[in-house]
Amino acid sequence: MTVKAGVIGATGYAGAELVRILAGHPQAELAAISSVSFEGKPLSSVYPAYYGLCDMLCGTEAEVLQKSDVVFAALPHGLSQEIAKECHDAGKVFIDLGADFRLKRLNEYEDWYKVKAVYPELHEEAVYGLPELFREEIRGKKLIANPGCYTTAVPLALVPALKAGLIEKDGIIADCKSGVTGAGRKSTQDTHYPELNEGMHAYKVGGHRHTPEIEQTLRRICGEEVTIVFTPHLLPVNRGILATCYAHLKPGTTLEQLQKVYEDFYQDEYFVRVLPDGMKADIHNVRYSNFCEIELHTDPRTNMLIAVSAIDNMVKGAAGQAVQNMNLALGLEETAGLKMFPPAF
Amino acid sequence: MTVKAGVIGATGYAGAELVRILAGHPQAELAAISSVSFEGKPLSSVYPAYYGLCDMLCGTEAEVLQKSDVVFAALPHGLSQEIAKECHDAGKVFIDLGADFRLKRLNEYEDWYKVKAVYPELHEEAVYGLPELFREEIRGKKLIANPGCYTTAVPLALVPALKAGLIEKDGIIADCKSGVTGAGRKSTQDTHYPELNEGMHAYKVGGHRHTPEIEQTLRRICGEEVTIVFTPHLLPVNRGILATCYAHLKPGTTLEQLQKVYEDFYQDEYFVRVLPDGMKADIHNVRYSNFCEIELHTDPRTNMLIAVSAIDNMVKGAAGQAVQNMNLALGLEETAGLKMFPPAF
Amino acid sequence: MTVKAGVIGATGYAGAELVRILAGHPQAELAAISSVSFEGKPLSSVYPAYYGLCDMLCGTEAEVLQKSDVVFAALPHGLSQEIAKECHDAGKVFIDLGADFRLKRLNEYEDWYKVKAVYPELHEEAVYGLPELFREEIRGKKLIANPGCYTTAVPLALVPALKAGLIEKDGIIADCKSGVTGAGRKSTQDTHYPELNEGMHAYKVGGHRHTPEIEQTLRRICGEEVTIVFTPHLLPVNRGILATCYAHLKPGTTLEQLQKVYEDFYQDEYFVRVLPDGMKADIHNVRYSNFCEIELHTDPRTNMLIAVSAIDNMVKGAAGQAVQNMNLALGLEETAGLKMFPPAF
Amino acid sequence: MTVKAGVIGATGYAGAELVRILAGHPQAELAAISSVSFEGKPLSSVYPAYYGLCDMLCGTEAEVLQKSDVVFAALPHGLSQEIAKECHDAGKVFIDLGADFRLKRLNEYEDWYKVKAVYPELHEEAVYGLPELFREEIRGKKLIANPGCYTTAVPLALVPALKAGLIEKDGIIADCKSGVTGAGRKSTQDTHYPELNEGMHAYKVGGHRHTPEIEQTLRRICGEEVTIVFTPHLLPVNRGILATCYAHLKPGTTLEQLQKVYEDFYQDEYFVRVLPDGMKADIHNVRYSNFCEIELHTDPRTNMLIAVSAIDNMVKGAAGQAVQNMNLALGLEETAGLKMFPPAF
Repeated sequence: MTVKAGVIGATGYAGAELVRILAGHPQAELAAISSVSFEGKPLSSVYPAYYGLCDMLCGTEAEVLQKSDVVFAALPHGLSQEIAKECHDAGKVFIDLGADFRLKRLNEYEDWYKVKAVYPELHEEAVYGLPELFREEIRGKKLIANPGCYTTAVPLALVPALKAGLIEKDGIIADCKSGVTGAGRKSTQDTHYPELNEGMHAYKVGGHRHTPEIEQTLRRICGEEVTIVFTPHLLPVNRGILATCYAHLKPGTTLEQLQKVYEDFYQDEYFVRVLPDGMKADIHNVRYSNFCEIELHTDPRTNMLIAVSAIDNMVKGAAGQAVQNMNLALGLEETAGLKMFPPAF
Repeated sequence: MTVKAGVIGATGYAGAELVRILAGHPQAELAAISSVSFEGKPLSSVYPAYYGLCDMLCGTEAEVLQKSDVVFAALPHGLSQEIAKECHDAGKVFIDLGADFRLKRLNEYEDWYKVKAVYPELHEEAVYGLPELFREEIRGKKLIANPGCYTTAVPLALVPALKAGLIEKDGIIADCKSGVTGAGRKSTQDTHYPELNEGMHAYKVGGHRHTPEIEQTLRRICGEEVTIVFTPHLLPVNRGILATCYAHLKPGTTLEQLQKVYEDFYQDEYFVRVLPDGMKADIHNVRYSNFCEIELHTDPRTNMLIAVSAIDNMVKGAAGQAVQNMNLALGLEETAGLKMFPPAF
Repeated sequence: MTVKAGVIGATGYAGAELVRILAGHPQAELAAISSVSFEGKPLSSVYPAYYGLCDMLCGTEAEVLQKSDVVFAALPHGLSQEIAKECHDAGKVFIDLGADFRLKRLNEYEDWYKVKAVYPELHEEAVYGLPELFREEIRGKKLIANPGCYTTAVPLALVPALKAGLIEKDGIIADCKSGVTGAGRKSTQDTHYPELNEGMHAYKVGGHRHTPEIEQTLRRICGEEVTIVFTPHLLPVNRGILATCYAHLKPGTTLEQLQKVYEDFYQDEYFVRVLPDGMKADIHNVRYSNFCEIELHTDPRTNMLIAVSAIDNMVKGAAGQAVQNMNLALGLEETAGLKMFPPAF
Repeated sequence: MTVKAGVIGATGYAGAELVRILAGHPQAELAAISSVSFEGKPLSSVYPAYYGLCDMLCGTEAEVLQKSDVVFAALPHGLSQEIAKECHDAGKVFIDLGADFRLKRLNEYEDWYKVKAVYPELHEEAVYGLPELFREEIRGKKLIANPGCYTTAVPLALVPALKAGLIEKDGIIADCKSGVTGAGRKSTQDTHYPELNEGMHAYKVGGHRHTPEIEQTLRRICGEEVTIVFTPHLLPVNRGILATCYAHLKPGTTLEQLQKVYEDFYQDEYFVRVLPDGMKADIHNVRYSNFCEIELHTDPRTNMLIAVSAIDNMVKGAAGQAVQNMNLALGLEETAGLKMFPPAF
């Protein structure tokens, strides 16, 4: 079987990465791509790295919908709802890399994104595509909300401890650092090379839209409301999310106990590496791969867990996870097309 | 008056930066430098950027002690005690960029550094050279312990709120990011370009020696024991410390109140910029300067202060602050030799 | 005496760097700045590194002209001619960092820049401000064309050999590498961090406007027409020009002879470092300084000179040289405000 | 068929990259690896990016030789001769990523490398593994000298023009820029992050050992002695060779003619992209891939060809080309395991 996959918004960074990953997928072929800004132009005119490899012309959304069995969309929020409806009506699988179907509480969606939920029944139907946490829900589904980058890295670092009742749900802090591709393809003064290079700063402190999404995942795990502090920072590297997460340990919890709980939790997970003592989670070591690595520490002086996770924001944090979700949705081998090594340097 | 200044350990990064700053100081001249590894060689053979500008030969400690009125030492911990003794006996000003005289509780020093305090009376005599917090103690003194980089950035971000009683002393977290020069001149596998570039990781989680030093400063401010979580990270940039500090707000504290308290606290401080709403503390914007900038946020959802400070680890976090301390010790204009603009790019 | 200096186009990179250098000049003060895009806004709103240090509001050209004794302009080509006229009529010194007065052959100017020379007599009057080559012409003058970055680095690497008759004037190749600030402040897709980082390419091959300017300087030195190959490349660093220059050696020329000729030629030049055997010209080592360093090699197998020069494109290649020219024009110490060390790291 | 492949020197950069590429090869499996420095340790302890993916222990040369059908060696020069002998005697395929069998004139080998050719008959037997130029010689062979990085990039940029008689063989200059991985895994002061970052310099000017290797290839193409100028530079990026090559055009040669000749020459080459007018060869666009891209210009003012080529030094310049050679040697699909897209960012 060869899956015909289409990408709407192929000229954004997540879309372009999807094209690259799909090109290496043994059971998928790229059926069509679309772009509003570059309609009629080859993808390789936008990304010269793909010259000769993907010179497919950017078409319209309608063309992608028509030619594809599986539709991926990587669009600004608000724009996926109509596509989801069309896929639904046509019986196609739709995997949304945008934010439209991630939040189950529609008021949260509407408050944080300032967009109206047009098809509440689709929001109801959508499953949240974080396979390591919600795999069984994803299998065979047709509408999948692919998580964001921070919202993948932070829960993977915290969930085993939270689920095992080893940490308090209150007082969680996620201090996160993101590579520049997280800001997208559009050049801005902030991402102009000389102004970002040799710099680092926090942004959207206390107000980033990934906050309710992380909280939703943690809430689902522990069954109670969770409110976190989430601080994103912009880092002068191309790729990666490093999430340094802080939580209060329940009395008596030890590092050995935590290490064991995490190793057990992720023991069958191909894409998660719980690092042994002495190894450091580093965005360098997961680049261009679908891996998440996790490093655990406790601080006995303050009785805190410090869990550090690292992913490639464009792969496990976007396009790779989307393909992982496609594999689950279609009943393919979950790792198909995703077994690439992170390069050593 | 021209001060004869000498630098012991001039070929390390802090030492080399001192030489550069002293070269622009209107009332100081470099009298002598020393290096164990490069004795007999010109400093410019180690740092070709200085070729033709500082070709002074590296001599011995003894030569520096003999030729200088003010002695700076930038040495691994443990090695400054004898120098301090000699300076003391000779009546010279000694400014130690190492860690030997920073911790007032000798057991903390001995526990964290595994070194014996040889001259307890000198530890007693030493003043802690963080001028914005302890200026009056420094004036006219002869033995000054120059703070480390993290231990400058973190207290400057927290002290005004702590002193004003606007935050709790418990539950403070300092998530810090450092440029590579913080790791020193010695090349290692970790700092080999291809392995650090495009990477980021935490290190010495829960065990960095700057922890008790930060706690000591906070303790002095609030008069009670303080225990913090401190997590340093290594960042692929040459210079800078970005400190993202978290603290619980006392009930009712507002951002406006905090902003006012910080602005008042630092209103006469040339080297501290409390940023107005909308500006971001960024290591990019303080490079090659003695400035510290501070950005304040509150998160009303969790009732936390998020204070972000940025310094150049080699200037305000080492050599610049040492010169600021020299100026105070000698009664010179505090900003002499230190008014350089951070470059815009 | 304090010179009142004004900067037209202060919010571009060269303008902002001028402001920084002038701030450290012992005999100059910044009288006024202008910007079309940011009129009425403080310079520090464009360059937050200057916050608290230069919050001067951007005014109009007219204000700068009125308030300043020396006017610098850092503008796109074509726009300096009227300013030059006004300065001329008002008897003010005008130092143009743009290209309008660099080329003496007006047809070359008009051909390469597609702009009409409006005041030929001013083009006649203008002197070319490369002090190491044309110092005596610059002293006391009122209209100075400040060279570009490549056009500083390449001639400094070649002129001593050319003047001494040790190389052929035909067959010269300049393979140059520039930091990103050379592309200016305006963000573009090419300078968007993720697309430039980890990349390098040539640009404007065979067609860069600095070509006739370099040729003009070489022609003035050897008294004959010179035609060169000039290939600029864009490099993922903020600052610097590295110029690798190739020329055919006249028969019998040795490296020792060349080294001696260069050392003699530049022996009284504060800002030029002719490196001894074993040292490498590196943009790293001249950053944030007005220095040019030069490394010489011969290749006996092919009988070629390989001369490598390095400058900071924003200092010796723009704002620093402009201040050097101001000093010469006004009879100040040539190095005033320009003796800053390049940082070691 | 599954090929058992072994890597001697697996912990160097080229060796580690080979392991990564072989892991994605559909018809090869990694049989054994060796390392003198890390014997007994898992490869992932040296390259944490491979943790969980290649935890194979480093063994001895002898083990690799015993367990493998195809032996790769990535060793300092001089050390491959005995391995070649053993492979020869055992009838195994040996692909040498080192320099020992590249130069056909043994005196050149001995002069440039200061090593004695121990088995001249093996030097005779060895084929030079640059498939785009010498494919037919490589097919089915058992001793293959894999070219170096510069020696791949430069000939690919020049050979079509040279072979077609459109450029002069005299006066060729190759100004090359290399990413840091070309300097190997061993950390040095030169590759210490703060000293390389924001820098660039030339090295081994007029004396790099790739010079005779490039000349040998050009000589084989045009049938006459060729002497070139070759200047390598070190670039602050991880990967890539950018080769800017200059040659005198034969009278009357046009860009259109050259473009056509290159396109024809490489029309069946999967791994070579001759770029159309307006696209730029950029190391950014070939990273992590086996592609070489080539950009052509002529400078009519000086009658020169400027040909710019870009490769990933670790893939097409080392490990990828080695696998390409393995495929040819064994009669596999030449592109097997090598069709990975370069990432767009």
